[in-house]
Amino acid sequence: MIGHPAFSVEPWAIRETWLDLELLAQTESVFALSNGHIGLRGNLDEGEPYGLPGTYLGGFWESRPLPYAESGYGDPESGQAIVNVTNGKILRLLVDDTPLDVRYGTLDNHERVLDLRDGVLRRTAEWTSPSHRSVRVSSTRIVSFAQRAIAAIAYEVEPIDGSMRVVVQSELIANEELPRGGGDAHGDPRSGATAASSLVSELHEGNGTAASMIHRTADSGLRVAAAMLHEVDGPKDTVVSLETFEDKARLVVAATLEEGAKLRIVKYVAYGWSAVRSTPALNDQVAAALSEAKTTGWDGLLAAQRDFLDSFWDRADVEVEGDPELQQATRFGLFHVLQAGARAEQRAIAAKGLTGPGYDGHTFWDTEAFVLPVLNYTLPQAAADSLRWRHSTLDQARNRARQLRLEGAAFPWRTIAGEECSGYWPAGTGAFHINADIAAAVVRYQQTVKDDAFEQEVGVELLVETARLWHSLGHRDTAGGFRIDGVTGPDEYSAVADNNVYTNLMAQQNLRAAISAVAAHPSVATALGVDEEETALWRDAAAAMVIPFDERRGVHSQAERFTDHEIWDFAATNTDQYPLLLHFPYFDLYRKQVVKQADLVLAMFTRGDAFTAEQKLANFDYYEPLTVRDSSLSASTQAIIAAEVGYPELAYAYYREAALMDLDDLEHNVRDGLHIASLAGAFTAAVAGFGGMRDYDGELSFRPKLPQALTRLAFHVHVRAIKLKVEIAPGSATYSVEGEAPAQLTHYDKQFEVSPEQPVTMKIPDWVRREPPKQPPGREPQHQ
Amino acid sequence: MIGHPAFSVEPWAIRETWLDLELLAQTESVFALSNGHIGLRGNLDEGEPYGLPGTYLGGFWESRPLPYAESGYGDPESGQAIVNVTNGKILRLLVDDTPLDVRYGTLDNHERVLDLRDGVLRRTAEWTSPSHRSVRVSSTRIVSFAQRAIAAIAYEVEPIDGSMRVVVQSELIANEELPRGGGDAHGDPRSGATAASSLVSELHEGNGTAASMIHRTADSGLRVAAAMLHEVDGPKDTVVSLETFEDKARLVVAATLEEGAKLRIVKYVAYGWSAVRSTPALNDQVAAALSEAKTTGWDGLLAAQRDFLDSFWDRADVEVEGDPELQQATRFGLFHVLQAGARAEQRAIAAKGLTGPGYDGHTFWDTEAFVLPVLNYTLPQAAADSLRWRHSTLDQARNRARQLRLEGAAFPWRTIAGEECSGYWPAGTGAFHINADIAAAVVRYQQTVKDDAFEQEVGVELLVETARLWHSLGHRDTAGGFRIDGVTGPDEYSAVADNNVYTNLMAQQNLRAAISAVAAHPSVATALGVDEEETALWRDAAAAMVIPFDERRGVHSQAERFTDHEIWDFAATNTDQYPLLLHFPYFDLYRKQVVKQADLVLAMFTRGDAFTAEQKLANFDYYEPLTVRDSSLSASTQAIIAAEVGYPELAYAYYREAALMDLDDLEHNVRDGLHIASLAGAFTAAVAGFGGMRDYDGELSFRPKLPQALTRLAFHVHVRAIKLKVEIAPGSATYSVEGEAPAQLTHYDKQFEVSPEQPVTMKIPDWVRREPPKQPPGREPQHQ
Repeated sequence: MIGHPAFSVEPWAIRETWLDLELLAQTESVFALSNGHIGLRGNLDEGEPYGLPGTYLGGFWESRPLPYAESGYGDPESGQAIVNVTNGKILRLLVDDTPLDVRYGTLDNHERVLDLRDGVLRRTAEWTSPSHRSVRVSSTRIVSFAQRAIAAIAYEVEPIDGSMRVVVQSELIANEELPRGGGDAHGDPRSGATAASSLVSELHEGNGTAASMIHRTADSGLRVAAAMLHEVDGPKDTVVSLETFEDKARLVVAATLEEGAKLRIVKYVAYGWSAVRSTPALNDQVAAALSEAKTTGWDGLLAAQRDFLDSFWDRADVEVEGDPELQQATRFGLFHVLQAGARAEQRAIAAKGLTGPGYDGHTFWDTEAFVLPVLNYTLPQAAADSLRWRHSTLDQARNRARQLRLEGAAFPWRTIAGEECSGYWPAGTGAFHINADIAAAVVRYQQTVKDDAFEQEVGVELLVETARLWHSLGHRDTAGGFRIDGVTGPDEYSAVADNNVYTNLMAQQNLRAAISAVAAHPSVATALGVDEEETALWRDAAAAMVIPFDERRGVHSQAERFTDHEIWDFAATNTDQYPLLLHFPYFDLYRKQVVKQADLVLAMFTRGDAFTAEQKLANFDYYEPLTVRDSSLSASTQAIIAAEVGYPELAYAYYREAALMDLDDLEHNVRDGLHIASLAGAFTAAVAGFGGMRDYDGELSFRPKLPQALTRLAFHVHVRAIKLKVEIAPGSATYSVEGEAPAQLTHYDKQFEVSPEQPVTMKIPDWVRREPPKQPPGREPQHQ
Repeated sequence: MIGHPAFSVEPWAIRETWLDLELLAQTESVFALSNGHIGLRGNLDEGEPYGLPGTYLGGFWESRPLPYAESGYGDPESGQAIVNVTNGKILRLLVDDTPLDVRYGTLDNHERVLDLRDGVLRRTAEWTSPSHRSVRVSSTRIVSFAQRAIAAIAYEVEPIDGSMRVVVQSELIANEELPRGGGDAHGDPRSGATAASSLVSELHEGNGTAASMIHRTADSGLRVAAAMLHEVDGPKDTVVSLETFEDKARLVVAATLEEGAKLRIVKYVAYGWSAVRSTPALNDQVAAALSEAKTTGWDGLLAAQRDFLDSFWDRADVEVEGDPELQQATRFGLFHVLQAGARAEQRAIAAKGLTGPGYDGHTFWDTEAFVLPVLNYTLPQAAADSLRWRHSTLDQARNRARQLRLEGAAFPWRTIAGEECSGYWPAGTGAFHINADIAAAVVRYQQTVKDDAFEQEVGVELLVETARLWHSLGHRDTAGGFRIDGVTGPDEYSAVADNNVYTNLMAQQNLRAAISAVAAHPSVATALGVDEEETALWRDAAAAMVIPFDERRGVHSQAERFTDHEIWDFAATNTDQYPLLLHFPYFDLYRKQVVKQADLVLAMFTRGDAFTAEQKLANFDYYEPLTVRDSSLSASTQAIIAAEVGYPELAYAYYREAALMDLDDLEHNVRDGLHIASLAGAFTAAVAGFGGMRDYDGELSFRPKLPQALTRLAFHVHVRAIKLKVEIAPGSATYSVEGEAPAQLTHYDKQFEVSPEQPVTMKIPDWVRREPPKQPPGREPQHQ
């Protein structure tokens, strides 16, 4: 897409210079605005044409039956799907007697800009109607980071060729008709179910330029309120009227515009939802939000947005020199990670953020394993909030564990509200590693921020309950090894295997972290019923953890016996047969050596302390030719380990792939929403890949190096009250610290101290240049 | 049920001496009549009350959607379900002005007898209406073995207490209302979907006492014809009238019966179905069948039935002395195996025969692995016909193999017409052993009957296409072993494992049999494109087959790593938590050592030649405490191996369990139909268990022994034109042969010859009496 001629490469914006309707669905995702609570797809102001209309609220869902041809005990009977709620984006325009519709007349000019520093989507258009009247329209759309219930649009119309009558209809519309299938139509299980919305009207009312509507989901019983309020600035004889219906509220502004005159409307939209609050309470809530927004005013909202983003970029920006596209894509990725997580506030951060209905709006391990690491080092409070959300679902996770005959808590593979929603257990519930991924996110946050309240209220319990899960999941073999049989690791082209290395190493870390947490918080531990006997069991299990290693091949086996399996016949696989899951049965995939996404290679990042440098190299060389990257979660991890083992050019290609995943629509499903984890992974590819940053057991170390194409890479991280900036040049790296205390760091195994305002420059040692292993044919990095 | 006081124990019948409505659904299955083409559940003549009305035709099915919460490539989108076709059993009676309904008035007397030698179901009843009129009703129902399209009912009414008006309505009814769920209602995946029938009327017509109706299934497009014809014998003023509707045809017979007078109606019913024949052609077909039946006449049908059964029992009877219940149950089982298979004639033999809608009327490996061995030695033509049906579905199996990226043919796990209908692949398509089971049935038939036409038309191709499948399923490991990874063996509490011993040994046999078949039929082989290169591959694969053996424990591992898994916590499992599949997730079952049904133990029967005696004992002792027998397919195999390794009392208990599976409703789902494979297994438990018969590579050997309770066991088998009778007494066995040629046999490893009419008696050696291993608590044999 970014390669599409309508798009320009620039450091702080995504700019589309003319409108190609073929790209509409994708651009709606790319131009989506969100603060983590409200998500507005980048639909055109006038509502049509659209690829997929979308207005989402974090955590707001409707039930969806999960049918089975042959059901089994424990299969969830109903799932949860994100709902397209009341659309408050619509501002339709009538020019004389013709509605503005870009499919008719002539679009003389059309530009959309997603401004990554202002945090707004701007649009300007010049359009000549079929009856030859020309008009200029501009809009600026914002979803406020500062006021999470608020979105707003400033909309302006001016005539180009003399006086004209215009009518603007500003609407709230519930139960929009949706096109069939957010991809479901083409049989792709990754897209969402997108049933037609079926919100039940509970209230609609209007007064002056304000209207509100309240609806309820038919089955899950959640209540949503949407309200709008307008400021209209037009010629003296401008007429404003309002009407409301069950599923529609419409403000009509009619004016005659002389040449040079303008009609300007600022539309404030407020959203709120609740599972418990009454209709009047919710109505008051959105009315209050509107009042506050109006008090702040349009300019105030813009200023607060810029402040928020300035502060974010100051903490989080990654500077990439030598590759303007990658610079743009990296910032685009960070911006969307921010949008997904900034104000999610104890609701799930979905795999697609709030940019589309893909995966039914579900949260997976993506959040803890890929998104939270970024938030952790840039906006740690958002990472903590997300983990507080997980903590709030502990009861559901405990119930699920009981149902599965396990101890502790078994968190769902996919969910919105906490209940397991996966309908194919080998690739769902079977992937127990999500529990260790959550624990790892807790550990990472604790290492990064000293937050006693978090530890006591959230951290210890999450660690204890997941440790209990692992202890009950494993058992001792006759040699005393602690085995975890029959689970699924990150690689979704294998399932239900014994002793998956990633799972077992993460479980080991989980058990040990629980032991430390219990020791640090004895009273919390006592309240949770943990005694010394239990921690002794955890300690023994962690110490005895089975880690399969194939002595013959000199590599770790992803899971027991994996390396004995037949190697996938890559030569006989056509490039149009990827992703394999759409062209081959799981039966065939599971029994062969073919890797969908980094699994053992991911273990070498998250538990790199458990591997020697030689093992890392041998393992990477073994798994790289087996890895097809049919998951967007893979490239960033491959970038990180490729950089570590000495393949910086390959790492660079993977970093680009992760960063450009959505701007280039590499997986051809951006229409369903962005791949937030891949975008987050781009940041980590820069920091942990080219920065070589690791944070094992609270020791911050770096092994920076640059690929040939990059002349400079700089990034920030915030660890333990240190605001650190690392600037990498081809032969050296400079570390500088803001704040009061010096930082103890490691650069290529050499410990050193950096004092505030006294940057330290370290030489980057040379590395052996070896030829990297080959990927399966046709699966080379897409941006080599 | 047989323990129920209404039932009596007798050698040649199942007799119910009074009617317990609580048992109605079960008795409808037990009293079902079938010839393999038509199946009539034992519903009461007057239609109501019923447990589940049922009239089935072999191979007649309707489509059924197979939904998935998360679908995968290769999942079948639609399935097939047996249809409750036009009910021709109904004869309703009006006594004065009250309909006979056993729920009202007084049932003074009610007896039903399934006569195993006459092959009929007889019923007599004396009933007093609420208005105090008493009547005697008797009926005899037959489904003809001799005329496969024909069922018939002789129905008699006589007044007991003086003159009365009676009306008999004899009907054909299509689209009967069915009770919700053949078990589906209680969430048991083993029962069928039983959607309401939805047959579309195409023709109905009547003339005299004859009527016919033709319907078509809405989706699968199959056409079914049902017709009836009556002979009425009543008082002079008896009035007969007929009317037909789209879904109903009704003959009304009205008479006034004086004391001592009788009304007798013989109703002939004919069925036919076709996917291709036209409505007129099908109508003529059933009319012709009726004409033939009428010409034969009621007495003629009865006589032919008795002849057919006399001949069957002469070939197949098992005599059991010392346990009358077991004698009865063994014959009951043989009778139902005969009913399921006798005239199936190139249609699938379903797991439930035609006795109920369980498992949607599907055929599984049960047929080749359990039912055909019995038919093979007793009615070999029926076994051949069943394999001809499999052969007729080769195109579907080849297509399925292509879809799974395999060579040769992949037969469906469950089907009616040949397409894969399993909606959960780990326990369906993953169970590739069905292909080797089919091959084994081919080999067994070839060894038993010299049938050149069969070999050339059916046998070679089935062996070649399945051998091709196995070759493509496996691959070589680095040590040169031929591995078959990621498949599911017979034990459904394990799935998708590597190198399942049963599967690999059966595949080995399959490959070798294909090599022999190709050598014996070079022209057929050439036509199938088999060359020496291909057979060399098969030979090498068979020779290199990996058979996991756990050296540490000294036992075979059911599949690789199975014995390393955690042992199921049987002590913590309550007896009401069986079958486990209804109380625990597959996730939990698959990863632990718990065996649903004989798997390795079955391999020790079907491929007993691949194990030493010591291995058999060690393996049996190891797996017995892990085997919960949640499948009805298990007990008979455990009986066979228990007898072999020296536990005849345990073998006896399992033989009883297999034989009494349905008469005692041990699995609590007889309402959905009988467990034909378990009933067949009872025969094999007697013959291969206590007879110790094995037939490896054409060498017929015996190791007879009796449990203490039995004083004599005698059975027949027909092998290679030899009609052999074996009579086992506590200390000796007597072998006798009918026919012309002598038989070469082996008795406890000692070869000897038996000439016709010169029985040979051999001594049975003593065996070491050891304490058998214990079953999981609560899972002891149900008839110990």
